Amino acid sequence: MGEFGLIRRVTEGRVQPPSTLLGPGDDAAVVAAPDGRVVASTDVLVENVHFRLDWSTPEQVGRKAVAVNVADVAAMGAVPTALLVGMACPPDTPASVMDELANGMWAEAARAGAGVVGGDMVTSERLVISVTVLGDLQGRAPVTRSGARPGDVLAVAGRLGWAAAGLAVLGRGFRSPVAVVGAQRAPEPPYAAGPAAAAAGATAMIDISDGLLADLGHVAESSQVGIDVRTELLEVHQRLVDIANALGADPRHWVLTGGEDHALAATFPTVEAVPPDWRVIGAVRQGQGVTVDGQPYEGPQGWEHWR
Amino acid sequence: MGEFGLIRRVTEGRVQPPSTLLGPGDDAAVVAAPDGRVVASTDVLVENVHFRLDWSTPEQVGRKAVAVNVADVAAMGAVPTALLVGMACPPDTPASVMDELANGMWAEAARAGAGVVGGDMVTSERLVISVTVLGDLQGRAPVTRSGARPGDVLAVAGRLGWAAAGLAVLGRGFRSPVAVVGAQRAPEPPYAAGPAAAAAGATAMIDISDGLLADLGHVAESSQVGIDVRTELLEVHQRLVDIANALGADPRHWVLTGGEDHALAATFPTVEAVPPDWRVIGAVRQGQGVTVDGQPYEGPQGWEHWR
Repeated sequence: MGEFGLIRRVTEGRVQPPSTLLGPGDDAAVVAAPDGRVVASTDVLVENVHFRLDWSTPEQVGRKAVAVNVADVAAMGAVPTALLVGMACPPDTPASVMDELANGMWAEAARAGAGVVGGDMVTSERLVISVTVLGDLQGRAPVTRSGARPGDVLAVAGRLGWAAAGLAVLGRGFRSPVAVVGAQRAPEPPYAAGPAAAAAGATAMIDISDGLLADLGHVAESSQVGIDVRTELLEVHQRLVDIANALGADPRHWVLTGGEDHALAATFPTVEAVPPDWRVIGAVRQGQGVTVDGQPYEGPQGWEHWR
Repeated sequence: MGEFGLIRRVTEGRVQPPSTLLGPGDDAAVVAAPDGRVVASTDVLVENVHFRLDWSTPEQVGRKAVAVNVADVAAMGAVPTALLVGMACPPDTPASVMDELANGMWAEAARAGAGVVGGDMVTSERLVISVTVLGDLQGRAPVTRSGARPGDVLAVAGRLGWAAAGLAVLGRGFRSPVAVVGAQRAPEPPYAAGPAAAAAGATAMIDISDGLLADLGHVAESSQVGIDVRTELLEVHQRLVDIANALGADPRHWVLTGGEDHALAATFPTVEAVPPDWRVIGAVRQGQGVTVDGQPYEGPQGWEHWR
């Protein structure tokens, strides 16, 4: 049906939020930026690197492509406004797959309150999805990775370890429990927790995409501080414990090092400043690097050693 | 050297324009949007579909990836402010190729006055470059494809047919004349002509990426008008005539149907309104579709028939 037919197919009849001043169909879109600044981030997902169509439905892949991106904007304390989607896909991709991908993207965009305002569709050997998200700071300062100060408390919002548990399950050829497998296939980042943290005075914030400890490492480095995670404050859900027992795995390993849930981590000046939906899990100290219960962490392999 | 080393390598020491409020290195960038609206467009380029590394240097590919995108923002009448670059590349891509790609992107971004504020780098089998550009309308209304009215004059800014001539030359195994081959490898869209046209009261505007007639077809359809191109007004540069003669080709064919120069086409209420750097090449009339000297055009194949 060609590029234009395909674009019509995936955009026609969709509802845009008020922030979409000019949607798909022209040379470029126009999006409201009432704050006078715009937050922007791009993520690229490659088939068989970031997702597998034999593990996930196209709808889940579409959701995930949007979710991982919107989480970046939330982690600045911004509210997502618009998405642009670049799709490179094999010419023989069935129209039903494109429909499902688009449905997943629009559904997650709607959950985030953002419009899908534009994009591009080209052919390639392998499915590559590039999503750019725009966001509005609503008058607040962006919350960067560099503002954490010794004495701040460390808190997280959203799930930790669920996607990693799902990956472990899928990697052994299982398709359930669906709670963790679903978390791997399409994360549900706590979008609203980002702006809430910014409004509450968060000093630093990051989207956890590579794993809690790895991403806290970026905050520690940017802020030139040390960060200590307290395992007695870390919630390890009973579901994760049960699955880990069944697989002979360590659920705390998933929680500390698993990425892809796209939880948010932030630092706050005081415990009192931590908003609802956020859980205190540690503290910022002078020094450098990330520790767990005061001990250095040796990386994914080191985790086994450390325990 | 890993993703983070590579990102540092291609971003470190680069100069950002004042519109870049927060550049690469955090979860998202922050870009000035003084107008209260932001113009946004995404283009995806795939190796061996949109460029060939045996025809172009990585530096030219980088320039092209930025240029084709910035032209979309210019075609709305906006000034480009920021670029986000998603790169999916084979893991064995030499660092020197990444450096050259980045150099080309930064050079073209600087020519456009925009910053490279963020992006993503992932691995894939084939090089895929996704660029998102943001722009500022400076208080003007966006110039869409749908505002052309019967009686308007049609004008273009920038080159027509040069990239098509370059493609014909390259396709026959030649590497010169460098003027047309260079136009194919890295277009030089007339960025400033877009905002100038908007300020002068352009009623419709489009970036010519698929060919003059094909893209005017979008304007005619969106505006529900007919558009007539007058060949006596069409400049066919002597260089194109000479090359066409040497290849046994028709230079007007390149001018009318060749894309990839990313010239701009716009309609204006009067000849007097047409700004410098724009050339009148036709008129808007009642009706529908695009004609050449009042005759229907039958498409690329039809061109031979029509002449």
